[in-house]
Amino acid sequence: MTPYDQLLEKSKVIHIYQSVLSLLHWDQETHMPSGGLTMRGEQIALLSQLAHEEKTSKSYKAALEKLVSLKTGKIKIKGLSKLQQIAVREWQKDYCRANKLPSSFVKAFSQLTSEASQVWALAKKENNFKLFAPFLQRIVQMNREKATILGFTDHPYDALLESHEPCMTSARCSKIFNGLQGELKGLLKKIREEKKPDVRFLHRRISNEKQKEISHWLTSAMPVDPEYTRLDLSSHPFSIALNPKDSRITTRYLPHSFMSNIFSILHEEGHSMYELGLQSEYWGTAVCESASLSIHESQSRWWETIIGRSFPFWKHFYPQLQKILPSHLKGVSLDKFYRAIHLVTPSFIRVEADEVTYCLHIILRFEIEKQLIAGSLAVADLPEAWNAKFKELFGIKPPSDAQGCLQDIHWSLGDFGYFPTYALGNILAAQLFSTFAKEHPDWEQKVESGDLAFIREWLKKNIHQWGRTYNYDEFAKRITGKPISESFYCKYLKKKYLNPILS
Amino acid sequence: MTPYDQLLEKSKVIHIYQSVLSLLHWDQETHMPSGGLTMRGEQIALLSQLAHEEKTSKSYKAALEKLVSLKTGKIKIKGLSKLQQIAVREWQKDYCRANKLPSSFVKAFSQLTSEASQVWALAKKENNFKLFAPFLQRIVQMNREKATILGFTDHPYDALLESHEPCMTSARCSKIFNGLQGELKGLLKKIREEKKPDVRFLHRRISNEKQKEISHWLTSAMPVDPEYTRLDLSSHPFSIALNPKDSRITTRYLPHSFMSNIFSILHEEGHSMYELGLQSEYWGTAVCESASLSIHESQSRWWETIIGRSFPFWKHFYPQLQKILPSHLKGVSLDKFYRAIHLVTPSFIRVEADEVTYCLHIILRFEIEKQLIAGSLAVADLPEAWNAKFKELFGIKPPSDAQGCLQDIHWSLGDFGYFPTYALGNILAAQLFSTFAKEHPDWEQKVESGDLAFIREWLKKNIHQWGRTYNYDEFAKRITGKPISESFYCKYLKKKYLNPILS
Repeated sequence: MTPYDQLLEKSKVIHIYQSVLSLLHWDQETHMPSGGLTMRGEQIALLSQLAHEEKTSKSYKAALEKLVSLKTGKIKIKGLSKLQQIAVREWQKDYCRANKLPSSFVKAFSQLTSEASQVWALAKKENNFKLFAPFLQRIVQMNREKATILGFTDHPYDALLESHEPCMTSARCSKIFNGLQGELKGLLKKIREEKKPDVRFLHRRISNEKQKEISHWLTSAMPVDPEYTRLDLSSHPFSIALNPKDSRITTRYLPHSFMSNIFSILHEEGHSMYELGLQSEYWGTAVCESASLSIHESQSRWWETIIGRSFPFWKHFYPQLQKILPSHLKGVSLDKFYRAIHLVTPSFIRVEADEVTYCLHIILRFEIEKQLIAGSLAVADLPEAWNAKFKELFGIKPPSDAQGCLQDIHWSLGDFGYFPTYALGNILAAQLFSTFAKEHPDWEQKVESGDLAFIREWLKKNIHQWGRTYNYDEFAKRITGKPISESFYCKYLKKKYLNPILS
Repeated sequence: MTPYDQLLEKSKVIHIYQSVLSLLHWDQETHMPSGGLTMRGEQIALLSQLAHEEKTSKSYKAALEKLVSLKTGKIKIKGLSKLQQIAVREWQKDYCRANKLPSSFVKAFSQLTSEASQVWALAKKENNFKLFAPFLQRIVQMNREKATILGFTDHPYDALLESHEPCMTSARCSKIFNGLQGELKGLLKKIREEKKPDVRFLHRRISNEKQKEISHWLTSAMPVDPEYTRLDLSSHPFSIALNPKDSRITTRYLPHSFMSNIFSILHEEGHSMYELGLQSEYWGTAVCESASLSIHESQSRWWETIIGRSFPFWKHFYPQLQKILPSHLKGVSLDKFYRAIHLVTPSFIRVEADEVTYCLHIILRFEIEKQLIAGSLAVADLPEAWNAKFKELFGIKPPSDAQGCLQDIHWSLGDFGYFPTYALGNILAAQLFSTFAKEHPDWEQKVESGDLAFIREWLKKNIHQWGRTYNYDEFAKRITGKPISESFYCKYLKKKYLNPILS
């Protein structure tokens, strides 16, 4: 075996562990009898440990060092193809990152967040921030330590941000978000002056049977081969790939919102198509791994918002939906429906936010996270700071911490620097779309006729197939010819929401 | 840690691997997108290898030898509870068994049967025995080698039988089966002289929605807490336990047989209740493992046949079933229904056989297996031998090998000595039932009122909770006061099938 194949074999073992872990998580959220929970924890702990041991083992290091210098990243052997070189480059990066944090730190962090996420759930349920505060305090403290261990130049938050979006710093993020914030607030002000559409018909009670019918109809309309995917129910919709031939999504049935089911499916299908579009022959390497959370989110929001909320999309699909829901949609014209699904209104909960206000929720969290990590905001003062910033951005104040700073699970899981990727995903999606629309000037006619496959092909060609070959910045430049900028997203939103059809 | 706890920790790791393997198998048969098959094979291979390595590792051996002499089985340390001593006894036995077969043999056997089972599926589909014959030839040969390695006194088949039912030899089995065969043939002759019941209403087409309704109704009527189990669909019904808190069953919907759905659920619930009745605090030891395949089958057949085909059971449940299937069961009296579900008639396919002829199918396979392993029957002559023996037992000749010697998957998987456990299960169930009925003289009234929980409690107290503490023989003697005998089963069948209600 060549040194490349030797490392590939080891890497595949790690990928198998990860794929089994994905199945364990999927099963836990979808089908597992509740009695199985304790044992599931033991299964996950053992498999996670095996993957970690393999990644940080001496024999893995020895095999890697035959291929590449761990210090400089210089590849030591000749004759590798371009994609194999990418694989080696990322193996080296991953190894250095994984080995920076001592095992004792990883273990302590995992124990803390395991307990903290349970306490958070209770604190949210009881609207009791003080219950969660001591855990959040320790999580912030450990994240600061983590930043120090990982290293940073300007701001400790950079180190955390980089773990989730490798080519981003807090300074760059601030610049992008500042531009975005100004535009969004202006747009929101204009929209609020207009008459609100009637949305009551979207919230009439719907049976689970009808929801199921909608799910089946929508998933079979999407350009995804059922040989490689499936749909289940879970309390929060998610997408999980076991490998590039088996990527599963979930949705949920809210009895007073069938559109939540529809947009969840479109969102998760976007994630799933990304995973299914990776090159399976490179499985076990970074070429067959998604590039970053922001890029993943660009794919899900692409299908959920840019395509899934477009007029051509509903021009084709609305008559079909009307047939499924005759009593809900009787007498509701396409225009009325389209206006209703584009209601913009400030709300407290991020996951329920519309397209215009969504990124303001992210900017709020970004600002708070930076201050917590810098130490300029104490955990005890978080609720007050949250509410003040919320009032500044949205003009309203959350009625409780449960609907305020306690609403998201992320911090309890230890994730700082994760939230910005949601906004960065939207920003990239809009920028990519500007190029897509130029290359497919007839996209609206095609979508109107129900053709979605050419869109997936475009994404596969430009994003999916490359895996981690390029990063966030590089994809933007390669595909659109321009560096990443919030301007495309702002233009997209303005064009859409200031269009007479929505007023 | 004590030497006991040290070994327990190692044993738990093996059990976690096995529980993950169970989930991988369950998912493959129920929900996995077909595209995931190749990768599933890799996941299963890796986890199986880890479990095997751990079981046969030097450190496992060293830990075991601190507890018990591998040669004599004498326990070396003091202060163990009775159940802990059982755990050690079985660890020693399992270790010696697992280490008898060289890894090279295990690997070669696994490769052979993996290919053979695919060839078998094709051979069955195309009704082409010659396609499968060379593989079966090698499987028989390797089973002979296996018998030699494992060791035997009288007949090489003993070694194979013992792998599936530890306390059985082919001589004992022959004696039991000979007694059974005579009785069954006599009973069958008497029944065949009687008028056949009308069963057409059982085979009218049924929708999947109705089948689903039946499944839900029946599973909620069974004395099993939904916290620990779930029901799915698969092409062949099965039961699989991940651990004593998560045991899952499947059924299937045959469009022309709703009773197949019902009896499958009852059968698999019987297996499942056994696994859920094990003492979870002993998880990782033999005390929390089922005792043998025969004992497992005694539990499934108990619920499927002894209870699930009893008159009191249907006196309670038939009116409910009539409500679910008004058009199928309109005007069908309880007596007519009861007679129809007890139709006895010779048939070619084992899994579709009625209660009276079922064991004759097993006896046929037992006789053939013994001859193949002894070398007195050549693989090339198998179809002819099968058909001749079939004619002798049932009075009819299979129209094809697909409906004859190619019908079961077991041999292609390498399993010789497995089939007898199906008959031994029926035999044990009837013997246990004789004691149960004495201890619960009012069982019929209770079942008539819909009470099934007391039956599960009796089984839990007498069988489930003991795990591998006792073997097949010991359970029979402990519970019924008598050695195992086919006479109870014969008496049970005669009492039932010669009862006027069925004539």
